[in-house]
Amino acid sequence: MTHTLNPTTTRRHPVNVRDVVVEDAFWGPRQQQLRATTLDAQYDQLVATGRIGSLALTWTPGSDEPRPHPFWESDIAKWLEAASYVLGTHPDAALEAKVDGVVAALAGAQQEDGYLNAYFTVVAPGERFTDLRDAHELYAAGHLIEAGVAHHESTGKTTLLDVVARYADLLVSEFGPGGAHEGGYCGHEEVELALVRLYRTTGERRYLDLALAFVDARGTTPHYFDVEQEQRGTAGFFGAMFPQRGDRRQEFLEYNQSHAPVREQSQAVGHAVRAMYLYSAMADLAAETGDEGLRGACETLWTHLTTKRMYVTGGIGDSRHNEGFTRDYVLPNDCAYAETCAAIGLVFWARRMASLSGSAQYVDVLERALYNGVIAGVSADGQKFFYENPLASDGSAVRRDWFDCACCPPNLARLEASLGSYVYAASADSLAVDLYVGSTVARRLGGADVRLRQSSSSPAGGDVALTVSSSAPAVWSLLLRAPSWARGTAVSVNGEATDAVVGEDGYVTLRREWADGDRVDVAFDVEVRRLYASTHVAADAGRTALAYGPFVYCVEGVDVEAPVHAVVLGDSALEPVLPASEVVPVLVGPASVETRGSADDAVLYSEARAPRRDVELTAVPYYSWNNRGASTMAVWLREG
Amino acid sequence: MTHTLNPTTTRRHPVNVRDVVVEDAFWGPRQQQLRATTLDAQYDQLVATGRIGSLALTWTPGSDEPRPHPFWESDIAKWLEAASYVLGTHPDAALEAKVDGVVAALAGAQQEDGYLNAYFTVVAPGERFTDLRDAHELYAAGHLIEAGVAHHESTGKTTLLDVVARYADLLVSEFGPGGAHEGGYCGHEEVELALVRLYRTTGERRYLDLALAFVDARGTTPHYFDVEQEQRGTAGFFGAMFPQRGDRRQEFLEYNQSHAPVREQSQAVGHAVRAMYLYSAMADLAAETGDEGLRGACETLWTHLTTKRMYVTGGIGDSRHNEGFTRDYVLPNDCAYAETCAAIGLVFWARRMASLSGSAQYVDVLERALYNGVIAGVSADGQKFFYENPLASDGSAVRRDWFDCACCPPNLARLEASLGSYVYAASADSLAVDLYVGSTVARRLGGADVRLRQSSSSPAGGDVALTVSSSAPAVWSLLLRAPSWARGTAVSVNGEATDAVVGEDGYVTLRREWADGDRVDVAFDVEVRRLYASTHVAADAGRTALAYGPFVYCVEGVDVEAPVHAVVLGDSALEPVLPASEVVPVLVGPASVETRGSADDAVLYSEARAPRRDVELTAVPYYSWNNRGASTMAVWLREG
Repeated sequence: MTHTLNPTTTRRHPVNVRDVVVEDAFWGPRQQQLRATTLDAQYDQLVATGRIGSLALTWTPGSDEPRPHPFWESDIAKWLEAASYVLGTHPDAALEAKVDGVVAALAGAQQEDGYLNAYFTVVAPGERFTDLRDAHELYAAGHLIEAGVAHHESTGKTTLLDVVARYADLLVSEFGPGGAHEGGYCGHEEVELALVRLYRTTGERRYLDLALAFVDARGTTPHYFDVEQEQRGTAGFFGAMFPQRGDRRQEFLEYNQSHAPVREQSQAVGHAVRAMYLYSAMADLAAETGDEGLRGACETLWTHLTTKRMYVTGGIGDSRHNEGFTRDYVLPNDCAYAETCAAIGLVFWARRMASLSGSAQYVDVLERALYNGVIAGVSADGQKFFYENPLASDGSAVRRDWFDCACCPPNLARLEASLGSYVYAASADSLAVDLYVGSTVARRLGGADVRLRQSSSSPAGGDVALTVSSSAPAVWSLLLRAPSWARGTAVSVNGEATDAVVGEDGYVTLRREWADGDRVDVAFDVEVRRLYASTHVAADAGRTALAYGPFVYCVEGVDVEAPVHAVVLGDSALEPVLPASEVVPVLVGPASVETRGSADDAVLYSEARAPRRDVELTAVPYYSWNNRGASTMAVWLREG
Repeated sequence: MTHTLNPTTTRRHPVNVRDVVVEDAFWGPRQQQLRATTLDAQYDQLVATGRIGSLALTWTPGSDEPRPHPFWESDIAKWLEAASYVLGTHPDAALEAKVDGVVAALAGAQQEDGYLNAYFTVVAPGERFTDLRDAHELYAAGHLIEAGVAHHESTGKTTLLDVVARYADLLVSEFGPGGAHEGGYCGHEEVELALVRLYRTTGERRYLDLALAFVDARGTTPHYFDVEQEQRGTAGFFGAMFPQRGDRRQEFLEYNQSHAPVREQSQAVGHAVRAMYLYSAMADLAAETGDEGLRGACETLWTHLTTKRMYVTGGIGDSRHNEGFTRDYVLPNDCAYAETCAAIGLVFWARRMASLSGSAQYVDVLERALYNGVIAGVSADGQKFFYENPLASDGSAVRRDWFDCACCPPNLARLEASLGSYVYAASADSLAVDLYVGSTVARRLGGADVRLRQSSSSPAGGDVALTVSSSAPAVWSLLLRAPSWARGTAVSVNGEATDAVVGEDGYVTLRREWADGDRVDVAFDVEVRRLYASTHVAADAGRTALAYGPFVYCVEGVDVEAPVHAVVLGDSALEPVLPASEVVPVLVGPASVETRGSADDAVLYSEARAPRRDVELTAVPYYSWNNRGASTMAVWLREG
């Protein structure tokens, strides 16, 4: 199958992370912490667990060294990607030396033919590309490619880009037309979107074609995972045979989204991170080729996911069993899996859908996931992480230093480090403000060199000021996203109110000749909202979730002298209160708590309805939970 | 350790099943169905799955025969026990022939030394008694012993009793003082209570002593499961090694209640069926020996279980993971495990606690489990079974014909077949009516031959009449249990109201000279009750369960045009309504259902609180759910 490229796009693309300096009351300290603490701590973990050392390829059977794992390179690569973004805006000789060292180690581990995976080089050298379904081999390659692109774009160096391009060239020869493994694709998607990035950076069409080939082959018959198992004759990396028939086959197929050709897929199924990475690649490819089949599938999948299978936090994938989706409206709160990486994957996909469509509706979901399901994954001190993100806890959930399967911590790091690239999207004569994050963006617009400075007091809807510096007066469009959480968005230009109208795309568009010193003020009308789930959702029946701005709130037991399931909201409104030295308010107001005192210990079931006592309730942003010790927690609160 | 027997007991014991004929509007048809359908269907399953055939000991490696499993004899034995009870009150030549055939097959499978287990005879002959922890070997022996006792007591034959006594004698020589396996005990308790039954039937003290030895050894150090694993040098039957240290060791220990000596155990932990069978044996032994340590442990464990870890249905064991208990007040409804066998085990234990104490509080729990958690395990047609008994369903739960691990169906059969023995408890001069079940009991009381006929219109609290037939006037006490679900219990004797007072033991006691033709009428004041869980139970917060008499109710989606989680009860009362040809009422009354119509399909989260529409709600007894096709179901209903 050949594809033409999309020749006429005027779409806005994310602004490169290097061109955005974040100076924000909320994100600034988080990025500072990332630079000062988290990156070093994660590097130390990569060293201590043997991941970096594995690149020396000195492991032998029986040696004391930790045995390399097929996807260790992906952890290293995500850390490199995060570190590269930091270096692009905040030069740091010590960090650069670490990065250069890891890049050199990767280059040293690369084989003559371009191959780069320690496990398949020293542990199972004969098994290269024989278990695409389970071994994560191309997944790890994809992360290396993303790291190579990020490293080049942020530092200008080609040391890692050259390495990963050589590896990608090997993949083209193995999986491209006439290659030994033509028709194959990875059980854990990732390499597809990475190859699109590599194409965009290098302009080399063969990488885009390989990404298309991977996506096009997925779910076709004869099924590649049957073919490779037949050739291999053994179970996959985790010991499972690919079932030839029955219910279990469907489960295996859906797990990695290979149950149907991708253009025919209409429901978000299987492993949630895999799904997000596949859909991201599909959106990228739709954008590059104009493929309406891919675009249509993306839109159908998006609607399905966001109207039937997404938590209010933007967390996705309700089940631990498959780290993914089960059935429509099955969104249990206490045992929600909602992997941090899956919410990050939703951010990736949403950004691509926004770019593909120019519609702010996708940014609304991006923002929901980012400010809730994603950043809940890291502790206030930047050093502990959630893999799973339940929306209710009996007090047993706590963040951890690291995980054997360590995908989430460096994934969080690369997202936070690249936050600047999510704030703005631009075309040749337009700049859209997608997130209200204090920052300065540099961009050529309407023929002029423009710098736009955004100052924002709080991501929860504080007033925003935008000031323009321009090399010359120039005509371009400034688009201001009207968040779905704002009751209204008032805009003034140089002190004069505009009759700003929110377009169908969800933006207020100001097209004019912008001159140096122009100033735009944006004010949001923000109130505490009570959210209600579709009545199809059993887990949320009779419950409400509190929200303010983009933040979803929760109640923690530490703030009420009772388990949070005993808390009942009445009709009285809660009000935002800004704690000292914070930029996101807590919500405070009257509520009641059910308790029978010691009678509750003595009798399990009685005819006595529990009396209520009044309390002043404090709800905290969901992302901030579990930072004050183990505690019960609930997002969905009883109402009545 | 030696134990003296308890010399002075005047406790009431259950009346033998053979001496009670059930003629009850509720139970009569169920027992009739058991005789007409269920026993034959289960026998056919025992044949079809190879269980009966395995006793021919003809399996060889590579043969086409199903490979025997170590606990297949337990399924056979429970069916034999059920069939024996039936033969005791309802002679049936065809059933007797089947029973005799199975008994002969068991006798034929017995080895020279008394051993009787097909798996360890033909599959793994060298491994006898090497894996007490996992292989269920003594568990299967215990069920054979119970079957032998029941067969003898109900039919008078000794064919099976002789077989199991020979097997028990082997166990005495192997596990008794000086035996090769002294200090060992089974990972799945059962043989202990069986040996007490065998002692009571035969009077042979060595069986009681062995039961005591098993119970006394449990949880002592050095731990037997370490010792046997060390000797064996391999993992257990299911492939797991017994952990030497760490959190996993505690989990393994608690799983089979070997984490501490039994007299020091204070919390119901681990596999729920195992726990119930152990505690039942402890109560039996406390009764036989007067051991205050065992009695005290039983009382402590009982209080813990019933105030912290029991569903309102009498189901126990919330987690599928260990088929058992997790933490206090963790009682999720939709994923409740609540194995049918565990509720049956609670009935067993409760009856023994009632016998040990003479207190009706234990019968209240027995009745709760029996009328709810137990009989929900079987379909209205008597042919399909639940293994797990959730208290809420999204419509995916359905009963099945049989299970690979088939403990529940024959366990239900033996309980229903022996129901008569739960109705009355007696001493030499007292007869207690524990359950209000239409029946006739024959018993020697106060020196006379007495028959008491009980007629009861409904177990939900209809009026009850008791008539005495007596060979001569005699003084004895008639005790009438005052159920905890009755607001009041009015008693008249020969038409004259008594000022009946409920004693501390929970019974109304009528001690007088009873003459032939005396009549007692009992009237219960019964209302629809709303039950509330302790506020410690997160899963039931804001919810109520409906109850009437001993029955807990549920709502099924088939009775409301909405998923049941959208149903909300108001303050209006529901009233009992007796459907045609039923003896247990349904509950009918006003409620509301939340729905937004098609908006619920289009938007997952909104600020619109769902409006309510009024409905007439019908709640059905929990035991009867899932008899009208797959449907959503909930016991705990929203209120407000």
